[in-house]
Amino acid sequence: MNKNNDTIKSELGRLRKLFIMPDSPDKFIEFGNELLAMIHDFFQEKGGIHSSITLPELSKIFEESDLPDKPILIKDVLSEIKNKIIKHSVKVGSPYYIGHMTSAIPYFMILLEMIIATLNQNQVKIETAKASSFVEKEFVAWFHRLIFRRTDNFYKNNIQNHKVALGSVTSDGTMANMTALLVAREKAFPADDVFPGVRNAGIEAALRYYGYTRAVILVSTRGHYSLRKSASLLGIGEKNVISIPVDNNNRIDIDKLRHKIKKISRYRHNARTKIMAIIGIAGTTETGNIDPLDELAEISKEVGTHFHVDACWGGSVLLVDEYRYLFSGIEKADSVSVDSHKLLYCPMSMGLALFRNEKDLCLTRHSSQYVIRKNSVDLGRFTIEGSRPFSCLKPWAALKILGKEGYSILFKQAKKSASNLKAMLDACGNFETFNVPELFILIYRFIPKTVRDDLIVLKELTLSGHDQEIKEITRTVKNINRLINALNIKLHKSLRMDDSSFVSRTKLESTPYRPQQIVVLRAVLINPLTTRDILREIVSTHNDIGLQLWEEFSPLYERIRSHINQYGWI
Amino acid sequence: MNKNNDTIKSELGRLRKLFIMPDSPDKFIEFGNELLAMIHDFFQEKGGIHSSITLPELSKIFEESDLPDKPILIKDVLSEIKNKIIKHSVKVGSPYYIGHMTSAIPYFMILLEMIIATLNQNQVKIETAKASSFVEKEFVAWFHRLIFRRTDNFYKNNIQNHKVALGSVTSDGTMANMTALLVAREKAFPADDVFPGVRNAGIEAALRYYGYTRAVILVSTRGHYSLRKSASLLGIGEKNVISIPVDNNNRIDIDKLRHKIKKISRYRHNARTKIMAIIGIAGTTETGNIDPLDELAEISKEVGTHFHVDACWGGSVLLVDEYRYLFSGIEKADSVSVDSHKLLYCPMSMGLALFRNEKDLCLTRHSSQYVIRKNSVDLGRFTIEGSRPFSCLKPWAALKILGKEGYSILFKQAKKSASNLKAMLDACGNFETFNVPELFILIYRFIPKTVRDDLIVLKELTLSGHDQEIKEITRTVKNINRLINALNIKLHKSLRMDDSSFVSRTKLESTPYRPQQIVVLRAVLINPLTTRDILREIVSTHNDIGLQLWEEFSPLYERIRSHINQYGWI
Repeated sequence: MNKNNDTIKSELGRLRKLFIMPDSPDKFIEFGNELLAMIHDFFQEKGGIHSSITLPELSKIFEESDLPDKPILIKDVLSEIKNKIIKHSVKVGSPYYIGHMTSAIPYFMILLEMIIATLNQNQVKIETAKASSFVEKEFVAWFHRLIFRRTDNFYKNNIQNHKVALGSVTSDGTMANMTALLVAREKAFPADDVFPGVRNAGIEAALRYYGYTRAVILVSTRGHYSLRKSASLLGIGEKNVISIPVDNNNRIDIDKLRHKIKKISRYRHNARTKIMAIIGIAGTTETGNIDPLDELAEISKEVGTHFHVDACWGGSVLLVDEYRYLFSGIEKADSVSVDSHKLLYCPMSMGLALFRNEKDLCLTRHSSQYVIRKNSVDLGRFTIEGSRPFSCLKPWAALKILGKEGYSILFKQAKKSASNLKAMLDACGNFETFNVPELFILIYRFIPKTVRDDLIVLKELTLSGHDQEIKEITRTVKNINRLINALNIKLHKSLRMDDSSFVSRTKLESTPYRPQQIVVLRAVLINPLTTRDILREIVSTHNDIGLQLWEEFSPLYERIRSHINQYGWI
Repeated sequence: MNKNNDTIKSELGRLRKLFIMPDSPDKFIEFGNELLAMIHDFFQEKGGIHSSITLPELSKIFEESDLPDKPILIKDVLSEIKNKIIKHSVKVGSPYYIGHMTSAIPYFMILLEMIIATLNQNQVKIETAKASSFVEKEFVAWFHRLIFRRTDNFYKNNIQNHKVALGSVTSDGTMANMTALLVAREKAFPADDVFPGVRNAGIEAALRYYGYTRAVILVSTRGHYSLRKSASLLGIGEKNVISIPVDNNNRIDIDKLRHKIKKISRYRHNARTKIMAIIGIAGTTETGNIDPLDELAEISKEVGTHFHVDACWGGSVLLVDEYRYLFSGIEKADSVSVDSHKLLYCPMSMGLALFRNEKDLCLTRHSSQYVIRKNSVDLGRFTIEGSRPFSCLKPWAALKILGKEGYSILFKQAKKSASNLKAMLDACGNFETFNVPELFILIYRFIPKTVRDDLIVLKELTLSGHDQEIKEITRTVKNINRLINALNIKLHKSLRMDDSSFVSRTKLESTPYRPQQIVVLRAVLINPLTTRDILREIVSTHNDIGLQLWEEFSPLYERIRSHINQYGWI
């Protein structure tokens, strides 16, 4: 018994040493330096973006379902991480990685993460997060002011006012959108003398009390999938997110929105619909375009509904004064969501839900005895999440280190990169670009010049000609697009195999070929390390592989073309 | 124009250098070392837990509502962080901080955070998270097996099976509970040939289709406030979280649960109630006690409802084989939530929602064109959140570095600490302890010995005596408790002022004085650096300050006592 106790005691002693910064921090610095070298290698490494290992091979590496029993030395675990994980990670920071909204990040972010982990504050409560609670409120006010531009006095009264909240920091953009829609739901079915509010009584009771049969959310077809997810979670139902078509530049069609509102505002079969929110997008995920926010604000006001702007992607671009005109009307929104791991260049992940009215978030306030008491100053009263890290230190410090000035330069560079890529693709001839890149995203496809020329001629023919002919031409165009769709899917896969660069792929109805769905490639151009030369290399790779694949497709195309010739169209 | 371009160019050059690890990593190491020294100071510093600055003073430091315009040097921002933030942070890692579920963390966690930030993988999608997606599935399987103990074959087939998910990694425990309850909701109102499921159609349509008027969740009065939050968010309504009383050791009262189920299962005024979930708690937040999970599993089966276990606090303790008996029945749960920033000693924050049935999470699966396509292997198909960091690297690596063996030692030490504190408080005489600390949390109050002795006598008297006398005695006991409540609130505030240690405070009905609410102090004893000597110091501080405050309260007590004497009870 005694012996056993001794063993545990000495083990406990060893464990305790892991829990403090060793008296002399040599050990920590030794590991730190080793890690720095590892990180350095990772950044310098050329070659593949995704590592060539296949997914089934990766499965084999991580298929141990039993927990580790015996302790392993830190250095051995670090080298396991190096060989099994770092080696097979995606180089999202590579300047050749232009496929998703992930860029290189400034290296000081790593220092900030060290501070966050060391302090290990829990933002839920002032007893576990003292200065950091105030930093968060200051940071939220910065973005609130950037977006809503309320008066000096407003901020003086509210920046550190613990009775209200200008916004809440969330784990990501989905949660930020969810927070905004939660507030919208509370506002749609508020408490009164009789009804305790939807939050307390639930959706069914709320609809019944207010005489509705459903609540809907209106957003363009470019709306992010997190909105459907939110509608599901909030008990509204995914089918009650109503999609409004967009124009060819991916902006919501205002006439169609008005038409839809008129239609759903009518009673039908005793069914009455509550419009819970209208959502504008400031930077669509797929194309980076911005809805006409001014008009959406006006319509929302007419309808008397909550106006939310999903600016998870684009919101930070308001830091450039000259680009503000793109967002005209955003200051009239009831709520706006922004992500810091996107255009604030912070590591994964942090979202921000901001509310023009400082009292809106009070509708969701909650409390408990042991944590976040009612009259406390705890930030946790206003958040969906409970325990939260001090993530806001990253954008707070980054805004100081880079300044509005620094971010302006980064965004101008991003805009230039997008224009450059568009110009290169247009100049090459074998590509078709689809959108005017407002916020650094370009949508395009590979299409050999001859095919494109044919499509142009066919398009012109549909403007004249008799009905039967137009029908036939339209069918031909569809067949050609189907072929080019298959070509682009294959091209995307080949680019993944090539692995020297990365772009993403999606399908869009908002092209000149609508309503046909067109497979497009998607480049997100925000990495400041992506130079013009790198873009040239990427275009050239696309073109080479595309032409190579075309050899396989051209016989099929010739068949369609002979059909065209038969009609004498081309 | 040209000149302007030059300026931007040179600035861009400077910015680009921030985005890569400098060619020679000296700069990074220089900052890194500076930071290490800072971190070292922070850990070594004795003195106050919370820093003595007042909240209004802190407000003054962070009241700038305008975004920083010009860039500031990294070293200046780091020193601002040091002076304004680190200095005024809560030392949650101090061995004297035993008030919340936050402990010291092993220093290697800081290294792991560096790796996570450097890789900056986004777990939503395989295109942004390659090896890390597999690590996450392996980690989830580890905990799944620890809890549900399914067969070798089950894990062989499912650990890396991208068609199913054994669980999902969330930003915290609230989101883990929410994920579990979302699945419970889908199971309660599933899709069939006619109905598209609650997720698609919403709560109102689901209740209507299945012929119910409300859905309820049953949990003990010790249920975490995140459950009410989840019910609100999910459209069920907070009032439909039905609280079942607990016994004096904070475990759900099974008879009362059965009674309640019988009651709500009856039709009343054409209202029919669906029991959406029964929740067991494995480590209540306030007291660390565990519900009788076996019995709850049985009742859930009888009722035919989802059985969720909120093991956010205690789940990790299953790593100690000898403590498994405490959780008997947890393997029969449909879902279990666990937090890694609690008893896995990871930094803020990460939760885990685990499902016994590997297909349960498929009910919430979603997809989109541009990300997480339908047949993809993307983890984002199964999560409420969208963008997610590679947080699971921390517990994954920690389990290797410490092993089950290491965690066992830590938990045994925590249990010992809790017993030690209870023994010290009981021995002192001026304290009353309220719970048997199963999972490292002790609930107690300061009460001078004479008062306690009086209460014991009065208690005994209520066992005999006539009704009028019992009524009078009960009123007296209430008055005494009211006084002691006030004393303990004051003591807690004084301890906060003293700031040499930290415990938290709550109010409980589950004491021998029920139904009266008793103000209690709450110690969470999980920091391995909290030695027996430190506990002695803390008890002594409590006692000294308590006795000092008592001088102010004793005249009031004398008045109550003279009332007692008048009856000749004592």
